[in-house]
Amino acid sequence: MDYRPLYRVLDPESHDPAARIFRVVHHVLAAFGIAIVLAETMEPVQADYGAELAAGFYVVGGFFIAEYLLRLIAAPSKPGHEHLPAWRARALWAVSPGGIFDLVCALPGVLFMTEHYWASFFGFIWASKYVRYSPGLASLGRVVRNERQSLFSVLLGFGIVLLTAASIAYLLEREANPAVFGSIPAALWWAIVTLTTTGYGDVVPSTVAGRILGGSVMTGGILVFALWSGILANGYAQELRRREFLRTWELVAKVPFFHNIGASLIAEVARLLRPRDYPAGAVVMRRGQPGDCMYFIADGEVEIQLPGQNVYLISGQFFGEVALLTGAPRNATVVATQPSTLLSLDIVDFHELLARQPELARIIHEEAQHRHGETAPRPLAEPALAIDESA
Amino acid sequence: MDYRPLYRVLDPESHDPAARIFRVVHHVLAAFGIAIVLAETMEPVQADYGAELAAGFYVVGGFFIAEYLLRLIAAPSKPGHEHLPAWRARALWAVSPGGIFDLVCALPGVLFMTEHYWASFFGFIWASKYVRYSPGLASLGRVVRNERQSLFSVLLGFGIVLLTAASIAYLLEREANPAVFGSIPAALWWAIVTLTTTGYGDVVPSTVAGRILGGSVMTGGILVFALWSGILANGYAQELRRREFLRTWELVAKVPFFHNIGASLIAEVARLLRPRDYPAGAVVMRRGQPGDCMYFIADGEVEIQLPGQNVYLISGQFFGEVALLTGAPRNATVVATQPSTLLSLDIVDFHELLARQPELARIIHEEAQHRHGETAPRPLAEPALAIDESA
Amino acid sequence: MDYRPLYRVLDPESHDPAARIFRVVHHVLAAFGIAIVLAETMEPVQADYGAELAAGFYVVGGFFIAEYLLRLIAAPSKPGHEHLPAWRARALWAVSPGGIFDLVCALPGVLFMTEHYWASFFGFIWASKYVRYSPGLASLGRVVRNERQSLFSVLLGFGIVLLTAASIAYLLEREANPAVFGSIPAALWWAIVTLTTTGYGDVVPSTVAGRILGGSVMTGGILVFALWSGILANGYAQELRRREFLRTWELVAKVPFFHNIGASLIAEVARLLRPRDYPAGAVVMRRGQPGDCMYFIADGEVEIQLPGQNVYLISGQFFGEVALLTGAPRNATVVATQPSTLLSLDIVDFHELLARQPELARIIHEEAQHRHGETAPRPLAEPALAIDESA
Amino acid sequence: MDYRPLYRVLDPESHDPAARIFRVVHHVLAAFGIAIVLAETMEPVQADYGAELAAGFYVVGGFFIAEYLLRLIAAPSKPGHEHLPAWRARALWAVSPGGIFDLVCALPGVLFMTEHYWASFFGFIWASKYVRYSPGLASLGRVVRNERQSLFSVLLGFGIVLLTAASIAYLLEREANPAVFGSIPAALWWAIVTLTTTGYGDVVPSTVAGRILGGSVMTGGILVFALWSGILANGYAQELRRREFLRTWELVAKVPFFHNIGASLIAEVARLLRPRDYPAGAVVMRRGQPGDCMYFIADGEVEIQLPGQNVYLISGQFFGEVALLTGAPRNATVVATQPSTLLSLDIVDFHELLARQPELARIIHEEAQHRHGETAPRPLAEPALAIDESA
Repeated sequence: MDYRPLYRVLDPESHDPAARIFRVVHHVLAAFGIAIVLAETMEPVQADYGAELAAGFYVVGGFFIAEYLLRLIAAPSKPGHEHLPAWRARALWAVSPGGIFDLVCALPGVLFMTEHYWASFFGFIWASKYVRYSPGLASLGRVVRNERQSLFSVLLGFGIVLLTAASIAYLLEREANPAVFGSIPAALWWAIVTLTTTGYGDVVPSTVAGRILGGSVMTGGILVFALWSGILANGYAQELRRREFLRTWELVAKVPFFHNIGASLIAEVARLLRPRDYPAGAVVMRRGQPGDCMYFIADGEVEIQLPGQNVYLISGQFFGEVALLTGAPRNATVVATQPSTLLSLDIVDFHELLARQPELARIIHEEAQHRHGETAPRPLAEPALAIDESA
Repeated sequence: MDYRPLYRVLDPESHDPAARIFRVVHHVLAAFGIAIVLAETMEPVQADYGAELAAGFYVVGGFFIAEYLLRLIAAPSKPGHEHLPAWRARALWAVSPGGIFDLVCALPGVLFMTEHYWASFFGFIWASKYVRYSPGLASLGRVVRNERQSLFSVLLGFGIVLLTAASIAYLLEREANPAVFGSIPAALWWAIVTLTTTGYGDVVPSTVAGRILGGSVMTGGILVFALWSGILANGYAQELRRREFLRTWELVAKVPFFHNIGASLIAEVARLLRPRDYPAGAVVMRRGQPGDCMYFIADGEVEIQLPGQNVYLISGQFFGEVALLTGAPRNATVVATQPSTLLSLDIVDFHELLARQPELARIIHEEAQHRHGETAPRPLAEPALAIDESA
Repeated sequence: MDYRPLYRVLDPESHDPAARIFRVVHHVLAAFGIAIVLAETMEPVQADYGAELAAGFYVVGGFFIAEYLLRLIAAPSKPGHEHLPAWRARALWAVSPGGIFDLVCALPGVLFMTEHYWASFFGFIWASKYVRYSPGLASLGRVVRNERQSLFSVLLGFGIVLLTAASIAYLLEREANPAVFGSIPAALWWAIVTLTTTGYGDVVPSTVAGRILGGSVMTGGILVFALWSGILANGYAQELRRREFLRTWELVAKVPFFHNIGASLIAEVARLLRPRDYPAGAVVMRRGQPGDCMYFIADGEVEIQLPGQNVYLISGQFFGEVALLTGAPRNATVVATQPSTLLSLDIVDFHELLARQPELARIIHEEAQHRHGETAPRPLAEPALAIDESA
Repeated sequence: MDYRPLYRVLDPESHDPAARIFRVVHHVLAAFGIAIVLAETMEPVQADYGAELAAGFYVVGGFFIAEYLLRLIAAPSKPGHEHLPAWRARALWAVSPGGIFDLVCALPGVLFMTEHYWASFFGFIWASKYVRYSPGLASLGRVVRNERQSLFSVLLGFGIVLLTAASIAYLLEREANPAVFGSIPAALWWAIVTLTTTGYGDVVPSTVAGRILGGSVMTGGILVFALWSGILANGYAQELRRREFLRTWELVAKVPFFHNIGASLIAEVARLLRPRDYPAGAVVMRRGQPGDCMYFIADGEVEIQLPGQNVYLISGQFFGEVALLTGAPRNATVVATQPSTLLSLDIVDFHELLARQPELARIIHEEAQHRHGETAPRPLAEPALAIDESA
């Protein structure tokens, strides 16, 4: 049997209308389920609306059971698993992290739902249901994982500073504040509240030496923040570069324009382009706006609304270059007529690329002249070239 | 009718004297209006000066109504809208975000002014009036928008951690602190106060397990800070590079010196230069200071105050190169005689550019020798070249 | 006598099984010792389990004495010290920072153990025992040391702002809050709690002017955070680049593949590769996953689990390139059969490197065709090259 | 009269022994003065030691008066001012920011010293005395100044968010907490304490809507931190690059080795080197350490302590390259015999530079072979080259 249509509905990245509807229902029910769990712990609400809450809990729990079963059924259509026997593909999915997580979200929710103690856990478990639909969170997870060694080193240093601060605070303050600094574990609570600059104020040193220590601990806390920031800023920069490149690399192959660039520059060009998705009907640019980038169509179709006529461009064509060449504002409004993926090239990179690739410059100039020669009175030569010639 | 003079007065980027006066009045009245709104909510002040406050409110409200009407009248002179019929240009402006915002600031301010409940909103609405005059804020807005997906992913992770922390805190602390940890929503308040390291201290865990959880939440809060910092640091670096380039690119074309550079390097040079604006009378450099950059005049005029004579340079000329070549301090004070835009080239980039562009080096050396040959006893050869020859 | 086997056991970077066991014992006992010190300061625990805690303290203290003596005995086998007389090598170690630190951890722990006052210091001293085993902490220490001048400048500015804030707060609030703002030292406590945004809430300004000052101090505190973050982010980026390069540089020499690259590119390639360690049995990649990097084996052995057969690759060989060339998912699962060090090359850098190095591209294509020609139906040419040819 | 010796003593960057002594006295007395001002505000101390404090205040004040007069006398020897008449040079200094600041520190200190109200200001004024001696603070000041527009934009956004939060909090909480949310200015205090995540806890929202607002404000506060961090991280990276380059550029000219590099690479090499200052007697490297950089002597002299003999190297020579070439630990201890400035070249950049500059590689290899041929058994060829040849 072919489970591919079902698999596509459940695929978080599918653009299928049925998949969209499924996602909306999924997201709304998860939010609804969280709200129910939260409400159940509030006694007055529970007293007044206990039955309604229980019914809602059943609905959400039921939906997640259904989702689990559907994902289990569709598992044999997972790309790369088509060659396996259906039962093996399903077993593999069932023991994968995603499968186990979905099971946790579904089955026990209903089993334990009468016990409030365990039910209150389902708030955050169901919140994690959104993770599958957030590619950005996966990226961030990868950043943290890549930098885990450095982050852990900061944590170790953090732990040593914490113990040191707590031990000294214990010695300095145990006489003056025996209630809150009476043991090192108690002082540790003060130390972490202070080192993270949270500062509840429930434990405050009162001796002069204790306050000097406190001031140093707070200042040291900033250092931990700053080190972590520095580590993650670098990790994120690297991840960002990686993620964008992977996507662009695939899309560049769809634009014939770039075939002239030659193998040795294709990787560099892929780095300059940024993929952008537009739903049908989205306005890509408006007439009269200043021009800051040009676009290549990787997928879909756009409508160029020129004053006298409308032109349609499809996958592989480009637009928006005239404003970059002339410095004039956009002379047309462009609307996506289908869900489209465009590759945008920033004005900064546009001028660099053209300067280095005379062949590309020629193609773009010819196309621009061909398209807009009659409407744009200014000569269309690239400014840099124009300067050169006038010298 | 020609609304261009009026449009120029209202244009936030105009250098017109009338536009400057309008901006001062606008900024002062907005600040004044905010002060009135704040004062009105303070009962003793309201009791004593109610009439004066109301009068002030009328003045500010009246000014914003006038501004709205003037902007509406001037709308047909907006660049790119000149070809439209006047009524259409005005309708377009009236339904644009700026037009709607100005309407909100103006009309209801007077309509509802007797109702203190709504009037107190006008404090922050009027504060937003400054946004139009702050190009930097638009840049920052663009950074946040570009990185919105990543920032949103952090927020989602933040939300999951928050729910998890609150659920666990509820289980751990509900016995010991039923008043403040009696439900998950109540525990959520503690969790967000802790995860953001705000730490009011109104809700503090008292059990050992609760405190260990609290310490982990605080430490996790630093991670959120750090991730956000990292994301925005990267986004800002990209935006900065973009903004500077766009401006410099336009200005470079005005300096004939750069026409010799050739098309293939112009984009790179534009990246090295930094545009700087000087009002008339501003001192660009002082005799005796160490020299750390040279300047190209993109717009305006400067006066070189040499010991014996004063020289005037205009748009397209350059100065300040002698100190970079000789390493001696500045041998003249330079003052802008008109509002001028200079392109500064840092000493670091100056030496790199000259090393790569022998033709530019020759022009600069000749000009330097011509200008300062008699006053500067040291040979004017570029240090790098001098080293090479002496080897 | 040959102390090298003993030295290897104690060496924090040794992969010896005995060294692993020693490290586990060391880490467990250090944690155990810290727990004992913490427990001793809690009076009820001390009252009930005093004897047990003392016994535990003896065990941990004894272990650290033994460790100290063993390290002293093994010192002559330290690389670079083999040519010295044994007594000199030992004396050198005994007066080195590591030797002194180990002495502090060992001897006095037992001497003073009856005195709780001093014993409570051993919590954090023993926590520092982990530092030797954390190479990341050394890196971070180096970052902080490299940037110490800038960090110190921020501290000096921090100190001046602190004194300024405290002096002004003293003048503004001493009338209204004589108890907490009665002297500048007292106001300094408020200032540091506020400037670090800790905000205990034990000292809060109550006058309007004091609150305006407080708001400014808090905002200024963010600037300190931000400056420190900026400084450390840059320092960390530099350190990271340095640390990775040093390690990769050594490993690259072990892979014959890179011998073709030529001296002039070897440093650049070393920068692209990232060393990764895998224990025996670790899964390097799984069949069906998307391919995001390829691997070179610097040390160890891996097993390629193809559908029909298992292939073993050893040091100097490479794998994982097919998925990068075809864009298809991984067609094999790869498992390390020994503790292995692999050099991974990211897909981004892979395509760049191949584009610039046709010779390497040829070798990889030939190997890929040779290995997988029969199982992969898609043509194996590199996409960039394919595009070029089809143009 | 020649004031240059006096000027040198007062110059913050002079290495003169007298200048060092002056700096120590200056720093100690400034610290002492701050301590006195702090102590004077503590009533019990003031009561017991009033006379001693006053005497100390006189001493410090007298020293700063003397410093002011000496700086005034020495002003004509300021570089760049030698050609001016003495009275003009002094007048120029007296009205310069430094001169006015020194006057403020000196004269009124004594005039108002009997009035405690004003005297308490001198704590932080005297703390600023250190600024002149901290070049790093000037760099940071320049970073903040360069980025002032962006930082100010964040502040404007911060202000708008603050007003918005306070207005809404006022509406939501004024019924429940009239004491602390009774007016927008009162709510502003809560908003700033919350937005900066300080969280004193003196004002806490109690309604559900107020708490949701509070949570949003805290989260928004992190965004301000993060934006500021991002802005300053970029600004600092730029400043750092600039400061290092300026210094290295001057020093490179002193090392004949770099004369062979050619004009076109000198700027790039200057970027790779890092200047480091060593006092006489400082150990630059120790025998047996791993080698991570080599050194060029820009100024001063070092002693190479080889096992059999001591070699002295002076300005223009280099050392430390053998360990980089062989990978072996340092084979000598190197000590600076005079205050020396060395240019260090990191191993990463060393290998890149040698790969690109075969001529430099040859010089270094010859020198290394010449110096250490007999002691280093391993072939001295550069690893990259060795790999190439063995292929």
